[in-house]
Amino acid sequence: MFDKIIPRSEDYAKWYTQVIRRAEMADYAPVRGCMVVRPYGYALWENVKEQLDSRFKATGHQNAAFPLFIPMSFIEKEAEHVEGFKPELAVVTHGGGKKLEEPLVVRPTSETIIGYMYSQWIQSYRDLPVLINQWANVVRWELRTRLFIRTMEFFWQEGHTAHATHAEAEEETLRILELYTDFALNEAAIPVIPGRKSESEKFPGALTSYTIEAMMGDKRALQAGTSHDLGQNFAKAFDIQYLDANQKQQHCWTTSWGVSTRMIGAIIMTHGDDQGLVLPPRIAPTQLVIVPIIPKNRDTDKQAVMQAVDSICETLGEVRYHVDDRHDYSPGWRFNEWELKGVPLRIEIGPRDLAKQQVVLARRDIPGREGKAFTPIANVAETVKDMLDTIQADMLKRATEFRDMNTFEPTTYDSFKEVVEEGFARAWWCENAECEEQLKAETQATIRCIPIEQPDGDGVCIVCGETAQDIAVFARAY
Amino acid sequence: MFDKIIPRSEDYAKWYTQVIRRAEMADYAPVRGCMVVRPYGYALWENVKEQLDSRFKATGHQNAAFPLFIPMSFIEKEAEHVEGFKPELAVVTHGGGKKLEEPLVVRPTSETIIGYMYSQWIQSYRDLPVLINQWANVVRWELRTRLFIRTMEFFWQEGHTAHATHAEAEEETLRILELYTDFALNEAAIPVIPGRKSESEKFPGALTSYTIEAMMGDKRALQAGTSHDLGQNFAKAFDIQYLDANQKQQHCWTTSWGVSTRMIGAIIMTHGDDQGLVLPPRIAPTQLVIVPIIPKNRDTDKQAVMQAVDSICETLGEVRYHVDDRHDYSPGWRFNEWELKGVPLRIEIGPRDLAKQQVVLARRDIPGREGKAFTPIANVAETVKDMLDTIQADMLKRATEFRDMNTFEPTTYDSFKEVVEEGFARAWWCENAECEEQLKAETQATIRCIPIEQPDGDGVCIVCGETAQDIAVFARAY
Repeated sequence: MFDKIIPRSEDYAKWYTQVIRRAEMADYAPVRGCMVVRPYGYALWENVKEQLDSRFKATGHQNAAFPLFIPMSFIEKEAEHVEGFKPELAVVTHGGGKKLEEPLVVRPTSETIIGYMYSQWIQSYRDLPVLINQWANVVRWELRTRLFIRTMEFFWQEGHTAHATHAEAEEETLRILELYTDFALNEAAIPVIPGRKSESEKFPGALTSYTIEAMMGDKRALQAGTSHDLGQNFAKAFDIQYLDANQKQQHCWTTSWGVSTRMIGAIIMTHGDDQGLVLPPRIAPTQLVIVPIIPKNRDTDKQAVMQAVDSICETLGEVRYHVDDRHDYSPGWRFNEWELKGVPLRIEIGPRDLAKQQVVLARRDIPGREGKAFTPIANVAETVKDMLDTIQADMLKRATEFRDMNTFEPTTYDSFKEVVEEGFARAWWCENAECEEQLKAETQATIRCIPIEQPDGDGVCIVCGETAQDIAVFARAY
Repeated sequence: MFDKIIPRSEDYAKWYTQVIRRAEMADYAPVRGCMVVRPYGYALWENVKEQLDSRFKATGHQNAAFPLFIPMSFIEKEAEHVEGFKPELAVVTHGGGKKLEEPLVVRPTSETIIGYMYSQWIQSYRDLPVLINQWANVVRWELRTRLFIRTMEFFWQEGHTAHATHAEAEEETLRILELYTDFALNEAAIPVIPGRKSESEKFPGALTSYTIEAMMGDKRALQAGTSHDLGQNFAKAFDIQYLDANQKQQHCWTTSWGVSTRMIGAIIMTHGDDQGLVLPPRIAPTQLVIVPIIPKNRDTDKQAVMQAVDSICETLGEVRYHVDDRHDYSPGWRFNEWELKGVPLRIEIGPRDLAKQQVVLARRDIPGREGKAFTPIANVAETVKDMLDTIQADMLKRATEFRDMNTFEPTTYDSFKEVVEEGFARAWWCENAECEEQLKAETQATIRCIPIEQPDGDGVCIVCGETAQDIAVFARAY
């Protein structure tokens, strides 16, 4: 018997952890709050990485590797930065059997050490821009952890760039925000909202932080990537200067931006259902599973079916497929397993199908009979490729509809308080921190972002009723 | 003026560091013994990774990610392992502002934490083999560091596998040794010697360690990769057991194996010359640099030459090329820079070449006029591709000849002591630790490996004169 996972409606948090562990995506490590990413989860992460990395390279960025350890004194150089990160640091005090003169911090993020290196490398305007990214592990001492979403150690990419002017740095920050949005929509099928963070939610040390915000299956928000315009804050703290064309010393303008393994959590919570994971075809480790079904003790049938499977495989080209020929497991058991693992498409083939020169094609994103159809063996490869595209598009469409259906536009603070418990609330906000504070205290919702896309004109703040320039998106968040 | 680097003959260690820093491969970090791998060095590492990773996947391995932190008590579970690694540990004692109950070790290698996870995941013989690799950073508190060769933090892959029988584990260990050898020969153009480590040189906790050993340009040896048969040592320490087909509990047999950023050091020291790096075409970040040469104030010529460059680029297909059109730098300066960076092939093209419908093709591996030849523009892409293959083959040939020329086969201990100062010594060894100790004390040479490939019959030990079964390779090593 296949052991079912708990339905989402019963306990969303428990569903989430069960799916991850049963699908062998990840596991808790014996070190509190740390995670092991298992091969199936890592294969998904590799596909995420590849898609992001090729976009970074296409926009002129290069990868590099900076040290894991940062001297404590570096962290302390930028006032807001140290305030934001000091409570979360893991500290190395001993090395090689001796106590260290200066403790080393295990990087929570790398603005400081990279800033130091940039101050060494950058001399002249000819050295700019510097466009570097690193794929790395970082550590933040989190008390309440959740696999992929918030763990003590996590994996990410962090881009760090230096520019001659503020305009160029701003342009870079927004270029990356667009790149992240493009990735989320077209690869992860997550309809994110790109926008600006409020002052209280921005990165410690940034001038302006941008974010992509997504709605999870429980209608809570998840910040899925951020891009920061750091102004000259880190350039001044680390003395990143260049000689301009007029032989004058100038401080650089820097940016930083990151997407982490949290994206995996976003994919799981955006698309998963009560059967388990539902992975977007473009980044799914396995796009198609082929399950041959052979009645017991029918060796002739078995041979014929397996031959047909081989012939199908030969036509599949670039499709990432897997043949599950574990004939000692029942077909139903195998179906359940691959549904749990979220493989987008399944081919079922038995002797009777073969006789009719057809197979059953089952879509993961449409459970049950509705998602099943017979298709001729003759052009099955083409059908599979088309179907994968269709699934990808439908997943984005479905997630977008879900988000829109659960996004409200309250016009009074009373209705705001009601609807924000049920999803996203879009409302005018005067950008006053006091309104933000009040609302957070009274509703537990936060300002997720001030979307880039805004309606014309202005309105009145949902809290205080004063004039407001922009709409903000409010939600309870992970 | 282009600032030359120090010749290898004058100061090999200084040459090595100068090449790396001037070519912008890497830099020392502000944390003692730590390294920053700069974009050019990292691009080479990415190519190394890709080549190794595709070989791992082709042999059934999958990637995963295990935690950076290991509880101190884990390290202490395998007696030889703790003895080997304890003096080199970096220790986290504080997290989130509090002193930890149990200190956490920053992983020096991951047998222990992975062993623990395997004990959770493996239940039955059906779960075996487990074939997992991780690309990770590790930390060992080294006192004497050298960029890429020995740094406090370094980057590597570590494979960890678990098997039902010792025979399977041995087979895996040797499969990986072969895979590493294949990579070294065919991608890095390094003629490594695959062999077994002596008891005193093996990995702490291993039953048998295998290695690939390379000769550097100063005739010293470098261990460039290792593969360990761990027997049941870690399986017993971490209780990695499975139920066999007869319902009996058995301990697994495990292996581990790794190649690190040290491979970059090996590439630099195997092929580099007094002009700088010489990179093997198959893994060079840039395989071809095109340098247009235009006399001053000749705008019509410039247009024509740059058009010709564009046309050439369009035909290059998969070749990784770069056009250096910094016309404000002299051609000679640009040549020097790309020679320093080790780009395998250079095209020079000016108005006079264009008039004759030809370009100059200059090989990095053959300095000066000898490596230069005119070639017709018409089929330059094909010539470039052929030439890259030729350079790759010639580099391996040259390195092999250099190694063989500096490998001696002394038959007396006196001649051994002389020749081992000049390169590798191949000599019979009785496998007695005392002979190994004596020789090490008297010559500073160590046993690099007992090569897999052995002559027929036996001989007498170079130290004690007793019967010896095998030839060993001795050298001074990094």
